[in-house]
Parts: sequence; C-alpha cells; structure tokens
Amino acid sequence: MEFGKNNTPFSEEEFAARLARAKDAMRREGFEALLVCDPANMCYLTGYDGWSFYVHQAVLVALDLPAPMWIGRNQDVNGARLTTILKDDDILGYADDHVQSLVKHPMQAMAAIIRERGLERARIGVEADCYYYTARSDAVLKAELPQAEIVDAGILVNWLRCVKSEAEIALMFQAAAITERIVEAALEVMADGVRQCDVAAVIQATGTRGIPGEGGYGGDYPAIVPLMPNGVGTSCPHITWRDEPFRAGTGTTIEIAGVRHRYHVPMSRTVFLGTPPTKMLAAAAIMAEGIEAALAAARPGATAHDVWAAWNDTIERHGIVKESRCGYSIGLNYPPDWGERTLSIRKGDETVLEPNMTLHFMPGLWMDDWGMEISEPIRISSEGAETFCHFSRELFIR
Amino acid sequence: MEFGKNNTPFSEEEFAARLARAKDAMRREGFEALLVCDPANMCYLTGYDGWSFYVHQAVLVALDLPAPMWIGRNQDVNGARLTTILKDDDILGYADDHVQSLVKHPMQAMAAIIRERGLERARIGVEADCYYYTARSDAVLKAELPQAEIVDAGILVNWLRCVKSEAEIALMFQAAAITERIVEAALEVMADGVRQCDVAAVIQATGTRGIPGEGGYGGDYPAIVPLMPNGVGTSCPHITWRDEPFRAGTGTTIEIAGVRHRYHVPMSRTVFLGTPPTKMLAAAAIMAEGIEAALAAARPGATAHDVWAAWNDTIERHGIVKESRCGYSIGLNYPPDWGERTLSIRKGDETVLEPNMTLHFMPGLWMDDWGMEISEPIRISSEGAETFCHFSRELFIR
Repeated sequence: MEFGKNNTPFSEEEFAARLARAKDAMRREGFEALLVCDPANMCYLTGYDGWSFYVHQAVLVALDLPAPMWIGRNQDVNGARLTTILKDDDILGYADDHVQSLVKHPMQAMAAIIRERGLERARIGVEADCYYYTARSDAVLKAELPQAEIVDAGILVNWLRCVKSEAEIALMFQAAAITERIVEAALEVMADGVRQCDVAAVIQATGTRGIPGEGGYGGDYPAIVPLMPNGVGTSCPHITWRDEPFRAGTGTTIEIAGVRHRYHVPMSRTVFLGTPPTKMLAAAAIMAEGIEAALAAARPGATAHDVWAAWNDTIERHGIVKESRCGYSIGLNYPPDWGERTLSIRKGDETVLEPNMTLHFMPGLWMDDWGMEISEPIRISSEGAETFCHFSRELFIR
Repeated sequence: MEFGKNNTPFSEEEFAARLARAKDAMRREGFEALLVCDPANMCYLTGYDGWSFYVHQAVLVALDLPAPMWIGRNQDVNGARLTTILKDDDILGYADDHVQSLVKHPMQAMAAIIRERGLERARIGVEADCYYYTARSDAVLKAELPQAEIVDAGILVNWLRCVKSEAEIALMFQAAAITERIVEAALEVMADGVRQCDVAAVIQATGTRGIPGEGGYGGDYPAIVPLMPNGVGTSCPHITWRDEPFRAGTGTTIEIAGVRHRYHVPMSRTVFLGTPPTKMLAAAAIMAEGIEAALAAARPGATAHDVWAAWNDTIERHGIVKESRCGYSIGLNYPPDWGERTLSIRKGDETVLEPNMTLHFMPGLWMDDWGMEISEPIRISSEGAETFCHFSRELFIR
C-alpha cells in the first residue's frame, strides 16, 4: 500500500460511475447534499476501509462538488489517504477532543465543514436508520445547521449497491471459495467433546487465511462473528460460542461468511453428532425441497415476494409455518450486519430481481428447543439463480 | 446452557445491585423509565448475550417495574430466555415484518409495549449517542409517544459500569491471560514474507481458543478485530490486515484484546522486522518513560487529566506533541468498540479515579509515515495502578 495510489480493488472509472448514480438518486429525491455515515456506503463511494466507525465519521456528497469528501477523526486521516481514491484536499479531520466527549460532538465539526462549503441552507439527506448516525448526531447537526433542511434519505445509497458490477461479482466468487473452506474445516473438527470455542477458532482462522499458496488470496473479517449455536441453543440463531464441548446427540447450526475485500458470501449448514431425530431428517428434506423451489423462482423479473412464496408454499404443504424472512441482499459490509438492509425475501417485498443482484437465501427454522439452517448464497443471472457455492445441502451427520 | 437457569457469570444478587444503582441514577436524573439500546448496557442489566444488535432491540427499565424487560425480534426471544436472568414474562418479541422493513419500524412495537405498561406520559431516557439508537429510532419513538417526554440520558448506564465488581475483575484477569497468549503467538509467527492475514488468523484463533487444558477456559470475540497495520500503515491506527506479506525493514503495531464473557483486556505492542531506525528506538524509550510516569500517577483520588498530564509532561520534555487521548475505560463490550465511552485519559477530563476502575492506557504515536503503540491495561487498586498483564514494554525486534 502506498500513499497516493489506488489501493482499492476497483478502477477509478467504477468509483466515478457509483458517484454518478448516487448523484442521480440525489437529484431524483431533491437532495443537494448527502451525509453518508454507513461504513459500507462510505467504502462504496470512496474506497475507505478501516475499523474507525466506532467514532463519528462521514462521506459528504454534494451535487456541486466534483468529488465526495471524507470527514473523520484526525488520527484516521492517514488511513483515508491510504485506502480511498480521494485527493488529500478532500480528506478532512476533526480534533480528537470531539471523540466520545462529554462537551463536544463530531457533528459540530461536520456542520462547520458543510457551512464552509456553502451548504448551510441546503436540503441534506442523512441515513437516519444507520447504526452510525445516532439520534444525537441528528440533533446536533440540526442545531448547528438551523437553515438547512435535514431529511431522512433512508437507504438511498444501499439501493445503489444492490446490483453488483462484474468486479464485485468476481470478489464474491473469491469469497465463496473461502466460504466453502470454512464449512469444510468446521465439519472436519466438530466432534463429541470438542469445545465450541475451539471450532470457532478454526472457523475464524480458516476465513482469515483465505486461500493459501500460489494464486491464493487472504480473507477479510466478517461483519458477524461465526454463529454456531448447539443443542437447545439452535432454537436461537444469534447466540455465539461457549466453552462447553459439543456432545453426541445434539445438533449445531453453523452460520459463517467467507469475505474478500469486505464482500461477503454467507452460508449456513446444520450438523448432528450421532443419530439425528426423525423430525430433523424430515425437516432437512423439506428444506431441500423448499430451497429448490425458491431458487427456481429466483430469476430476473420475479419479485422477492415470489421467491418467498415458492419457499413458503413448499413448507406449508408440509405443515410448517414460518414468520421470519428467508433471505436478504448481500455484498459489501461492515459490522454489525452483512445484509444490505434493502430487499428481503419475505411476503409483500415487491422488489423486482435483476441480473447481478446477490442474495443470501436463508431459510432457518427455529423451533421451541431445536432449529435448523440450510442456506444458499446466490447471484441472479440473466436466466435464473446461480449459486456462489457448490456444497451439499444435506443435514450433516458426524 | 439450560432454559430457566442463570447462565451468566454473575449472581442474581449482582444483577439486583446493578438494577438498584440504575434506578438510583434514574431518580437522580428524573427519569421514570429508561430505554437501553446499548448491547453492553443490555447485557449488564439482564445478562443478554447474542449477536442480534443489528436489529433494533432494547431493555426497558422503569422505576415502577420490579424487573427490566427485554424487547427484541421474535426469533431472538429464545436467546433472551437462555442468556438473561429474566422471567419469560419479561421477555417480549416483535414480529419479523418490522425487521429492516420499508414500512414498519421496531420502535412502533416498543412504543406499544411502553403504552401497555402505562408509561405513555412518562419522562423516558434514551441513549441518544449509542450506535444502536438511530436518528429514526428517536423520530419514530417520539411520533408514537407524543405525550411522553423522550430525553437524551447520555451514558447514564455506561457510568455505572465504570467501577467493576470483584466478579468482573476476576473475568478481566482471565481475559488478560488470553491477551498475553495472543501477543506471544503473534510475535512468534511474524517474520519477513509471512502474509498479514496469516498472522491475523493466528491472533484470532489464539484469542478464541483462550486457555486450553485442565482449568482452562475459552475466549470470546473482541469488539474490534485485530489491528496490525504494517509499514506506512502504522501511521493509521485503524486499518486492518491485508494479503501482503510482512517485509524486513518495516514496523508493525499490533492492537488486540483477550476477551472473557464479553470483558475485554486490550493491549498494543510494536514489532520491527530487522534493524529499527534510531527514531523508533528513541520513541520506544520515551514511551516506556511516559508509561511509567502515567502509571505512577494513576491512583484513587487522581483525575483522568492527572494521568494524561504525567504522560504528556514526559513526552513534551522530549519534544513530542500528541493531540489524541491516551486511554479510556474498558470492560464489558460489544462491537464496534471495546471502550466504555465514559472517561478518557485526556486533557480536561476531571473524572476522579476509584478502586476497580479499569483502563486501557494507550499512548499511540501516529506520525507522517510511521507509528508506534505500546499500551498497558490497568486496574486502579486501593494504592495505585495494577497492570492486568506482565509483558515487556520493549520495541520487539524480530
């Protein structure tokens, strides 16, 4: 990595196209400026990549400014110079006494920059439900810019990320190769008596090493840690590993993602140590049938709702009723979520599928005291659904 | 883990004491209710532990209710039953169609619960600068509860976490043993030609395995991934690993944390492959002197400012001027930050140190194209500062 070089995996032309699409969306929605605080959106528009999102930071896009501006903590300015495609003049820091301070707030510094750029009366979009644009961020910004119109822009930039470029798809196939290695490695070490944390360690190390050797490449950190609830824990999708060993006669759901340059390809599988109960074998067969039906329905022109309906019709025929969504858009992301927060595969989501949309079809069943997850990351191709991975959808028995 | 058991590392008495202190603070600030969205605060008050904070969730504390209430996504209710000390009646889920929806918001469901509990006219504190209480959360809550007074409560619960109990300190010493193992393992594998991602893999695996064998225990995930910028990257504290190998003649700053049951003990060290330049050796000597001075100043009755001043006087004598804070409170946390967002070791922070406050004294130097980090996690004891780890503060040369 060198200062002044494009250290991102994308061409400057690709960034220019992203910015043009962002400005088009801003014009359509009537925004003169957009304050982007979602780290994935910041990365999408500038290349910025660092674990600095625990302090307030933003990318400012204005219709009248040729390039986006990165604004963050002084000590992260060098990181922005190293990882973004921006010129040094478009990277601005604020003093460290704003950080987690009881008297100052970083949005005061951001407002000052917005004023200096002559945008103090502008209609400015903010990402109001983004984790990194807090209620206080909004209050301070509005107090500092009383003549501006600060408006919830929702997930305007997230929507731009929905259809991937060929360069993004290529990264996701690289991530998918890591995904498969992770699940293979986990299945290899899971056994009666092995501590849950030891399997989590193998999962993390495999994902971070990525593909070793000639032609290989490293893995990046996932936006969610490995989830691998065991036994009664499989009824709870989001609890993390424990010290306790896996025991014969219990099931485990593994949800992980291979990641390449922040692009995620998640996958879930279920393992049973010993002889699984009939209900789990039956559930696995129903899920396999439901996944086939959903993937057959996932094609350009169909809606997210149609994919959900194909899945839901299958499981309902077998007497299973499931309330939760069964998938979502995936790609570039940062903690705490690898989902893009745009389309969900659920009842009533009328988003029309297009080629190069990428989805995690994730039909979990979480029952009273057991659960099962078998999922499939897919790309919408010109004809239908292409799976990123090629991995058996069986209930694994060890 | 069994449903209906206390699966947390703390007694029910300890939770009762935490709740009592929270209610005292609420009375002092005039809050009848408090909506707690910070995952660390939710865990502190109820034991809740799951990677579900990417959807809106909260713990509701009301002066008139004997126990806190957990409110989250339906599919996380089982996780709350398994990990909290709450009764099932105090765990409430909202329907999945609220999740990342374009038409519904989880705060609508939370507001309904607040109304049902007769709190629709209450003065309700919210954690307005918490990552997980967004601008839209605030807007929806205020629209749904027009008669309530929704007020920024700041970091009221974070402050309660500042002084640790003996049970918390014991967990932090367990975490510290993991911290030392991680840095040892990283120093062992770092060499000319080793890919950065391969060292990151060793760091993650070592941290998650924790302490193996008889009497051992597992590690938990850190709230920040391993940071190990190399070469010119050491000028940027928050960039993460790359594919590129480490090369002779470059420095690397490693910042990691051992974690036990969500309690963090972070540490930083700097390694140079080959013969370090004189300026780095000189900087290491100055930092060692500054750390000694700061630790000598860190005692009950002193302020956070005093600790900063002891450090700053030392480095200024050597001609170094550093703007950024040089430490912060540590303990229980979730991504994206292991700092508690309360006291900072910086100019003007007049927080008075008390026994069992726990701090990461973290004096990084980030220069134009190089940097150095040597840090010390400490506990304030009755007499002074006790270090959690016992690890040489040298500039490591490999």
